[in-house]
Parts: sequence; C-alpha cells; structure tokens
Amino acid sequence: MRTVNAYAAPSATEPLIKTTIERRDVGTHDVLIDIAYAGICHSDIHTVRGEWGEIAYPLVVGHEIVGRVTEVGDGVSKHAVGDLVGVGCMVNSCKECEQCLADQEQYCLKGNVGTYGAKDPADGTVTQGGYSQAVVVNEDFVLRVPESLDVEKVAPLLCAGITTYSPLHHWKAGPGTRVAVVGMGGLGHMAVKIAHAMGAEVTVLSQTLSKKEDGLRLGADHYYATSDPETFETLASSFDLIINTVSASIDMGAHLNLLAVDGTFVNVGAPSEPLPVPAFALIPKRISWAGSAIGGIRETQEMLDFCAEHGIVPETELISADQINEAYERVLKSDVRYRFVIDAATLA
Amino acid sequence: MRTVNAYAAPSATEPLIKTTIERRDVGTHDVLIDIAYAGICHSDIHTVRGEWGEIAYPLVVGHEIVGRVTEVGDGVSKHAVGDLVGVGCMVNSCKECEQCLADQEQYCLKGNVGTYGAKDPADGTVTQGGYSQAVVVNEDFVLRVPESLDVEKVAPLLCAGITTYSPLHHWKAGPGTRVAVVGMGGLGHMAVKIAHAMGAEVTVLSQTLSKKEDGLRLGADHYYATSDPETFETLASSFDLIINTVSASIDMGAHLNLLAVDGTFVNVGAPSEPLPVPAFALIPKRISWAGSAIGGIRETQEMLDFCAEHGIVPETELISADQINEAYERVLKSDVRYRFVIDAATLA
Repeated sequence: MRTVNAYAAPSATEPLIKTTIERRDVGTHDVLIDIAYAGICHSDIHTVRGEWGEIAYPLVVGHEIVGRVTEVGDGVSKHAVGDLVGVGCMVNSCKECEQCLADQEQYCLKGNVGTYGAKDPADGTVTQGGYSQAVVVNEDFVLRVPESLDVEKVAPLLCAGITTYSPLHHWKAGPGTRVAVVGMGGLGHMAVKIAHAMGAEVTVLSQTLSKKEDGLRLGADHYYATSDPETFETLASSFDLIINTVSASIDMGAHLNLLAVDGTFVNVGAPSEPLPVPAFALIPKRISWAGSAIGGIRETQEMLDFCAEHGIVPETELISADQINEAYERVLKSDVRYRFVIDAATLA
Repeated sequence: MRTVNAYAAPSATEPLIKTTIERRDVGTHDVLIDIAYAGICHSDIHTVRGEWGEIAYPLVVGHEIVGRVTEVGDGVSKHAVGDLVGVGCMVNSCKECEQCLADQEQYCLKGNVGTYGAKDPADGTVTQGGYSQAVVVNEDFVLRVPESLDVEKVAPLLCAGITTYSPLHHWKAGPGTRVAVVGMGGLGHMAVKIAHAMGAEVTVLSQTLSKKEDGLRLGADHYYATSDPETFETLASSFDLIINTVSASIDMGAHLNLLAVDGTFVNVGAPSEPLPVPAFALIPKRISWAGSAIGGIRETQEMLDFCAEHGIVPETELISADQINEAYERVLKSDVRYRFVIDAATLA
C-alpha cells in the first residue's frame, strides 16, 4: 500500500478537497503509474454530484489519465518502467464473456470495472480515479501512449477521444460519408477532428455560431446553428451518420429528419430524461437511433495510434489541482475550449 | 377508361359504401389486373379516418391485392395475360434516384406513389386501391405470385408479409439469431412465420397468452405475456432483434432492455404519439432503435418466392365486400385471426 495525494469529493454538495488515498501494492499483473495529467470529463461532475446514482464518498474521480510506468508486477509483459501510458474509463472486466473475448470490454456482460466508484475485484475496495498522484492498474487495461503526442494534451483521448472514435469507426465514417456532430464541446470537438481525419465530410451542428471559427479550423467542412430553424430545412436528409454529444434534451424528430435513408443517429451524450421520439421519424427512411459507450481496449489503442498518425490531440486548458472546483463551474457553463486537463504535479 | 365496382370511404366518419370508380386505359407499360382478393390492413383504417393526414374523399383503399392479368400494354415484358400477380403498397416511383436504382423504391427520394390516396403520375388522378374489381398498374410495380400459394390467402403478403420480411432480412435474422416479435396480429403472425422459416429462434411478446397456442403452431419457440412484469426480468438482454408490430404506445425502456449487446429494435408499427425513450437504454449495450417501411419491389418478389418455397401464407378470414365495415370494427378490437381478405367476386 502507498499513500498518494488526491482531490476527492466529500459529498454530493461540497467542493472537491485535497486529501490522501491508498493505492494497493503492485500485484503480479499490475502496473504502477505516476500520473502526469488527468482530464476533467462532464461524467466526473455528474458522478460526484450523485446525478447518476448513489456513490460512496469520499470519491476521487477522473478517467482520462496519462503518466509514466514506475513499477510493474512480475507477470507484466505489456508495459515496462518508463513507458508513457494511459488509463481510460475501465480498469478491469471479466475477460471471459463473449463481449470481453470480442475485445468489447466496455460491454462486458458482467459489467466492466469503472476507473472510479466501482468495486475493485483486486481488493474489494472502491476504485479511485485520476485526480491523484499515482494509480495501480491491471496491465490489460493500460494503454500505450505514443510519445509523439503532446503529453500535456493527450489525456482526454482516453474518454472523449474513444467515445467519439468508437461510433465513427463502428458506423464506418470515412471518405464519401456525411457526418454531423451535434455539440461543439469536449466530445464534439474530438468527433470533428477524428471524423475529418477519417476522411468524412464533417458538419457541426451547434446551438450558435460562436465556435464556428474553431470548428472549421479543427476540420469541419460546414457549421450550422441549431437555434436557426432554417438549418433543419437546409440540411434535411443530408447525413449518413450523426454523433450527438449533447447531454441536454434536444428535439429528436427535427434532428432525425436530418438523416438520409439508412442513416444512424448515435447518442454518446446521455440526457437524464427520456427523449420523446416519433416512430414516424424512423420508419420512412429506415433510420436508426443508437447509443454507444466508450470503446474496447484494443479499439482504444487503435484510436491512440490513429491520433498519433494524424497528429490529433484535444484542445485543452491546463489547470492546477486547486482550480478543479472552478473548472467544474466553467464546464457546467460550457466555458471551456475544449477540455480541462489537471497538471498532476500540482498535487504534490 | 373503364368503370369498375369498388368500396369507397365517403368521408372520415362514414362507413365505406359500394360505388364505382374509373380505371385508366392500359398504357404502354401498364398491366390490367382483374382483382381476385384484397387484404384489409390497419393502415387502410387509419387512412380513411384521416388519422394519418388529410385525404381526398371519396377514397378506395386496399394495398394487398392479388388477381390475374387480363390485358397488357404493348411495351410490357414482365407479365402476360393470365398471370397470377400482386400489387402492394406502391404503384410507382421516380425510378432514377439512388434509392430506386438500389431497388429500394420504398425509400424513393421523390416519394413513391402509394397504391391509394397518392397523385398518380400517369394521369394526375388520385390513386385508388384494391377494394375494387380491377386496377391498372405500371408493370414494374406488379409482382409475380407463385401459383403454389393459396390464392385466397396470399394477398396480405403484399403488405404484412413484406413489412416483416424486409427488416428480418435487412437485420439478418437466421440460424443463431434470437428474434422477438412484439404483437401477435396481422403483422406479428407473419413475422413469426417468416422468422421461423429463416431459421431464427422466435419468441412472441404479446399482451396476454390468449394466442399462445396459435403462436407456437405458427413457428414461435417461446411465448410470453408483456402484461406480466416478470417477462421483462426473465428475458433481459435476450434478443438480437426485436420486431415491434404494435402501433400502440409501449414502455420503450423496458422493451429495449430485452436486447443483447448490439441488438436492434425495429418499429414497423407506427404509434401516432412520440414514444419517450431513455438514451441510457441505448448507450450501455450499443443498442439501436430503428424503423422500417415495407420493402422494395425486388425484395417483395424475393419474399413471395421465399414464402412459396416455405409454404407460407397468412392466416386469413375471407369476407364479402358488404362485411368490410364490420371487419374494420373487428380489426380495431383485435378480433381477427389474423387478417381479413375481401373476396373481390362479391363486388360484382
């Protein structure tokens, strides 16, 4: 066991505070990672505030983790001391169900083990996330981070990156496909970069045009405001794939109407309220509305390698640990371009 | 022009009455069909009662038509006098858009021409459907009906058959796939027969067990009542594909939860009210909710040939034309096993 500094939520209603947590000893197949950077994901905020169900406090969140390996267990073959590595939203799974065997650990039939707030099969404790100095993770859930990627910016690929890469890859975005991205935030700006790098024609659908310049710079071919009703007329039946990164409620009928025949609308953002959807919006064009959650470990590695090949990193704002609470408020106001990354050195 | 007997709706609120309508002269690429039988589809009722939008009265509905060719235009190569043929929900389309060129006339980008209530490009009149003695249809929208199929029962294949065959085929029902059919009515009983013939493991989800014996006889492997909450626990994550034939509102969250990872829920029935759907029901298992409309002409022919190969016809109740209004009331009460077919000889 070792004690490390961390920022934890003491309750659903209090600000996060500096504290210490215990990390388990490095087991045979474990990797000890000295955390360098941790991204702030909107899910972190939903979780600590109890909006996605009851949790055990205090809790350290953070599932966009990058750092260097400082110790490995005797049985570790995939990583070595000194390697630049990452950890995303999962730290384990059953490894034997049909989904795990198909490299889809995110859909593990027994439920994957979340990076924070889950019961850790290694020692029965509640997993604690990346807003900390170090973490011990089973080697199978540790990703290789290409050294060519800017280490200060790379962390959000572990959640925002894979969450958008996976559906773009699964539904075959590429040359000749018309992809729309709803929402130009942490997830949305990654979807734009990745879809563009895949060769798709990319359109951003944002509430306003305030980030239009950014959107076009990051790879969008077109940019429209959803607050303008004309957008929905102009773009009717225009897209093969729409990635919805917005977790607020939207007019589903109007958005589904933007799809061409056999088009797919994918929610990666999860509104807390059910969305009213007219079946008539789906039937006449054989449209699908789907959901997608992060990605498997193999796919996450593929995404990191893809990003290295195309020179893709998130747009980030680096903060110190004592700015986390302020950053949360700014995330809730969409006042971030486009992801906060905590410099873990400031936890010392 | 020729005058034929028909049953027409004079208004949204009056019963259908016997009348006469005009059929156009047989054009170069037209086929004149002496109608033998016409099925009654729930869509007919929605349409004549104005529930799916305003229509021009009087209107003759019916889009499950079977009969014999009695005359063909000079340019007709696909059909000959004496052939047993069928007409479904479409009588024309643009034939040049990418959907028509891909044999998906049902999704024609200019809108296909419905068998009734649509503007006929041939002469600008409003198309009139199958509750009549004869119809003139462009040869490309006339199907060959295998003589081995019971002609008294075959008509509903042209709508109920293709509407269920198409999604089962598109989403690859077959050996090793677990298919559920929601609703055991006109569409549902066809979905059971076809999915079973395709080799899938078939489960019926009906409100009650009142038609269980029929369901198992028609090819279902399992039969559950959705009025029993235990059904939703027992069958959680059990299906690869669910075909929802019910046009009433159902609990979407509960039904989506019956799908396994990467499963698809397909609406062929169209509830008039939007259905509230929690995105959280889609995301954790990458589930899709889709719609599907009838099928293309080539696929409809394939379905007829498939049904001939497997000896599949609908379960029907034969009625005379003067029983149509009574039959409508029985359809609305689900008091039909499982489709009414009008004997067109009784229109004489």
